[in-house]
Amino acid sequence: MAIDRNSLRGKLFIIIFGAHTRQGRLFDLCLLWLIILSVLTVCLESVPSIRTNYHPLLHTLEILFTVIFTIEYFLRVYSHPKPLKYLFSFFGIIDFLSIIPFYLTFILPAGHFLVTIRIIRLLRVFRILKLTSFVHHAQVLKTAIIASLQKITVFMLTIVALVLIIGTVMYVVEGEEHGFTSIPQSIYWAIVTITTVGYGDLTPQTPLGQVISSIVMIMGYAIIAVPTGIVTVEMSRSQPISKRTNSIECLSCGKAMPINTNYCSNCGHQLHE
Amino acid sequence: MAIDRNSLRGKLFIIIFGAHTRQGRLFDLCLLWLIILSVLTVCLESVPSIRTNYHPLLHTLEILFTVIFTIEYFLRVYSHPKPLKYLFSFFGIIDFLSIIPFYLTFILPAGHFLVTIRIIRLLRVFRILKLTSFVHHAQVLKTAIIASLQKITVFMLTIVALVLIIGTVMYVVEGEEHGFTSIPQSIYWAIVTITTVGYGDLTPQTPLGQVISSIVMIMGYAIIAVPTGIVTVEMSRSQPISKRTNSIECLSCGKAMPINTNYCSNCGHQLHE
Amino acid sequence: MAIDRNSLRGKLFIIIFGAHTRQGRLFDLCLLWLIILSVLTVCLESVPSIRTNYHPLLHTLEILFTVIFTIEYFLRVYSHPKPLKYLFSFFGIIDFLSIIPFYLTFILPAGHFLVTIRIIRLLRVFRILKLTSFVHHAQVLKTAIIASLQKITVFMLTIVALVLIIGTVMYVVEGEEHGFTSIPQSIYWAIVTITTVGYGDLTPQTPLGQVISSIVMIMGYAIIAVPTGIVTVEMSRSQPISKRTNSIECLSCGKAMPINTNYCSNCGHQLHE
Amino acid sequence: MAIDRNSLRGKLFIIIFGAHTRQGRLFDLCLLWLIILSVLTVCLESVPSIRTNYHPLLHTLEILFTVIFTIEYFLRVYSHPKPLKYLFSFFGIIDFLSIIPFYLTFILPAGHFLVTIRIIRLLRVFRILKLTSFVHHAQVLKTAIIASLQKITVFMLTIVALVLIIGTVMYVVEGEEHGFTSIPQSIYWAIVTITTVGYGDLTPQTPLGQVISSIVMIMGYAIIAVPTGIVTVEMSRSQPISKRTNSIECLSCGKAMPINTNYCSNCGHQLHE
Repeated sequence: MAIDRNSLRGKLFIIIFGAHTRQGRLFDLCLLWLIILSVLTVCLESVPSIRTNYHPLLHTLEILFTVIFTIEYFLRVYSHPKPLKYLFSFFGIIDFLSIIPFYLTFILPAGHFLVTIRIIRLLRVFRILKLTSFVHHAQVLKTAIIASLQKITVFMLTIVALVLIIGTVMYVVEGEEHGFTSIPQSIYWAIVTITTVGYGDLTPQTPLGQVISSIVMIMGYAIIAVPTGIVTVEMSRSQPISKRTNSIECLSCGKAMPINTNYCSNCGHQLHE
Repeated sequence: MAIDRNSLRGKLFIIIFGAHTRQGRLFDLCLLWLIILSVLTVCLESVPSIRTNYHPLLHTLEILFTVIFTIEYFLRVYSHPKPLKYLFSFFGIIDFLSIIPFYLTFILPAGHFLVTIRIIRLLRVFRILKLTSFVHHAQVLKTAIIASLQKITVFMLTIVALVLIIGTVMYVVEGEEHGFTSIPQSIYWAIVTITTVGYGDLTPQTPLGQVISSIVMIMGYAIIAVPTGIVTVEMSRSQPISKRTNSIECLSCGKAMPINTNYCSNCGHQLHE
Repeated sequence: MAIDRNSLRGKLFIIIFGAHTRQGRLFDLCLLWLIILSVLTVCLESVPSIRTNYHPLLHTLEILFTVIFTIEYFLRVYSHPKPLKYLFSFFGIIDFLSIIPFYLTFILPAGHFLVTIRIIRLLRVFRILKLTSFVHHAQVLKTAIIASLQKITVFMLTIVALVLIIGTVMYVVEGEEHGFTSIPQSIYWAIVTITTVGYGDLTPQTPLGQVISSIVMIMGYAIIAVPTGIVTVEMSRSQPISKRTNSIECLSCGKAMPINTNYCSNCGHQLHE
Repeated sequence: MAIDRNSLRGKLFIIIFGAHTRQGRLFDLCLLWLIILSVLTVCLESVPSIRTNYHPLLHTLEILFTVIFTIEYFLRVYSHPKPLKYLFSFFGIIDFLSIIPFYLTFILPAGHFLVTIRIIRLLRVFRILKLTSFVHHAQVLKTAIIASLQKITVFMLTIVALVLIIGTVMYVVEGEEHGFTSIPQSIYWAIVTITTVGYGDLTPQTPLGQVISSIVMIMGYAIIAVPTGIVTVEMSRSQPISKRTNSIECLSCGKAMPINTNYCSNCGHQLHE
């Protein structure tokens, strides 16, 4: 179904969902700032000293943001040519989860979990990737990562197996008296070590344990080269192809399509009217 | 020796060792989940609180898994055209080590070591690499790593020499009063530092020691580029060749062979009947 | 406006701003060492024990450096064909900030902030990039980084979003009793973990927290491949082009220009007289 | 001067300095193991518990190794066509430093420093790079690292400047009460953080300090891509050229030369007799 660009719904759709008109871009930019501010509010509210001193202000801001986001949500449902499609799309669900915690606090007893779920509205920031200057770059990254996914899986499987075996060995070598109280705990240590994070909350104490950890560390230091090599190779390959593709963005689902296609391969929306 | 595909042994062989029939894939998938569950059991059993509360359940599960794996082991020996070849192959030994610890606990006094050796059954997970979608990717990684092995050796030799010299210097500079109690201990610190793990269990206290560690850290930060460069270059080179190779998987040993070869170069098994 | 190479101003300009004559290079080298020594003085002065014992010496050195840099500053203003252009250029402001803190201590009460602002003079060290042997290499790095900026932005956005969501989840999971006192604090922990720094000042204590951190660590370990891939690809692409460009350095602003251009595209200065 | 292959000196020279005869390779391999064992002795001697219990054994071994290395040293001086050239070459000095500490303990009072200088003999291990299978790979790594040295210098300069400025800022922000007692101490912290080592001996306590460190960490995490990119690009370029070069090893200085050259470009020794 093509959109009637002159009706109110059509105009709203182009402003709210599109990013190729001046108004559409302005709308996205305002929304972006509102999201960042509302996420900041959630973060600040969790700081004990700020919560005590600025609670009324933060609460007022929260009501304001929720009202704006609620209006935006209903406008999105109203203006979308296929409301149900939007409701159950990735961003539709995110938008819903961004506003619902506030209303639930009226029904349910307020809890940590409920309050912090509001942070999910951060995911809405990814709408920024719609902006034409980013579409291409995000696409290249996505293509390269997807292309290297199977190789990364083989690599990850090896890492997981390594970490399980190293964890078990260290559990036997170091034992419970040095903090390696169980195999899962030792596996946690092995992950902390092989990824070169190295918290230092658990460290080997026995000479043999230190020799084994030294090997694990050098291994972790060397094998980081593997995913790096995978992604670099895929990225250098995916580059020229995507440069060639002159893409057009689907107004209905936001996916980038090659310029010479007539219908969005994702949602079937007509690209050229 | 070609396999008689109509005999029971032949059918079993294709199901158990192969991954190119629907039943073969199903068998591998079931096995994969059993292995993961049994490894999980070993891990959970090591957690003191779980061991105390769920010991009967975990013990029953362990008996169950061992019985299944024992049956599978005997079926593998029975159905393989060259049983001895299987028994002394990598996976044959792993399969044996996966079931033997359980039976040994009846003879020998139960110990930490014996119980945890069961984790070795995790290595059986690598049978998943037989699945056709992974064969190619695992092969590319393997080729790239083998091709870069000699360069990595030169690199590792340099790292080891660096770490030994830095360790000795820090032993002299920091001394026993700051935790650098011996050269091996200092070398352990040097490895922790140069790999950017940084536990913080041993840290330089003297100004000179801090200057030396700063140099070591920057060095470690910069030289990670070397193995990364090596692997990336090898990977980008090994890619096009392996893409060309249309490979066929040997039913006997699981190794990928070029499509136009008639016998497996690894175990001599006939590829096309 | 072309520079009169025979007037005093012209000669001074070529010595002070240029690096293609023997005197110009000598001037830059002397300046480089003065800058390094003066920065060293600032650093040493902050060490309590040194400040107490060598205060008169350090203060005398500081006066000496400031006087030299002040003379140099006025010579730069005097000899530059467009003094205002220099005053408000990047290096003009840096040069000003390098000498002003000393004079302000006579007017304002001496404070930490004022004294340490002198460290800014370190930035003058980057004048070394004017030296012909570095111009090309600095240019290649700059080109590669600028070319990968948009991709890096997409990557950074993802990291920031990840870190915010992980931080919030850990705040709920670990809670205030394990040191995760607020969402910002948890986000700080998430950054420390995902970048594989791993101070260990905040570590997960609950099993669920440790599982989540393990995932975060492996994620951080794997996604480092993304910026590496981006920069490597851009660098390998920017290389051949810049090798071809035989560049000439603008005497007025120090920017490298292609040899066949007549006027600096940055400041309009005539390149060939 | 060509070597007389039939004289004792000539034969000794080919065995000791060369690696292209069976005896020469055997000699190098024996030497390699002796070096590793002697370094191990030095390491073990520094462990308090081992020093107390096995002192006579370790001392005897040390005398043995020193005697062997002394004989080897004199044979090298005797057999080399240009003894002075060897004495003041890199390996000549290393060989001398490997044996002298032992003899000095008879004259000077035994000290930590003197004993640990023996670790320098480890550097002799790099003689292994003479072995033909490594020459090529070591050469490729060396070429790539040398080619990227200037770019790495620009990068390092940026890191040093960053670290100095960040250190100063953190000194002002965190202050002496949180462990940032001086600018050098803060710079040490900045290096620990930017290289993602993260000991955790010094951590930011103030909210502003944590925000700044977060930025530093993300920066350190992202800029590691730069040296990696540099080395990868240089390595992929240096590869094909060095593959083409069929190299011959100079018997006099061990340097790899192209097969079609007649005299070593490093020491002037005749390559083909």
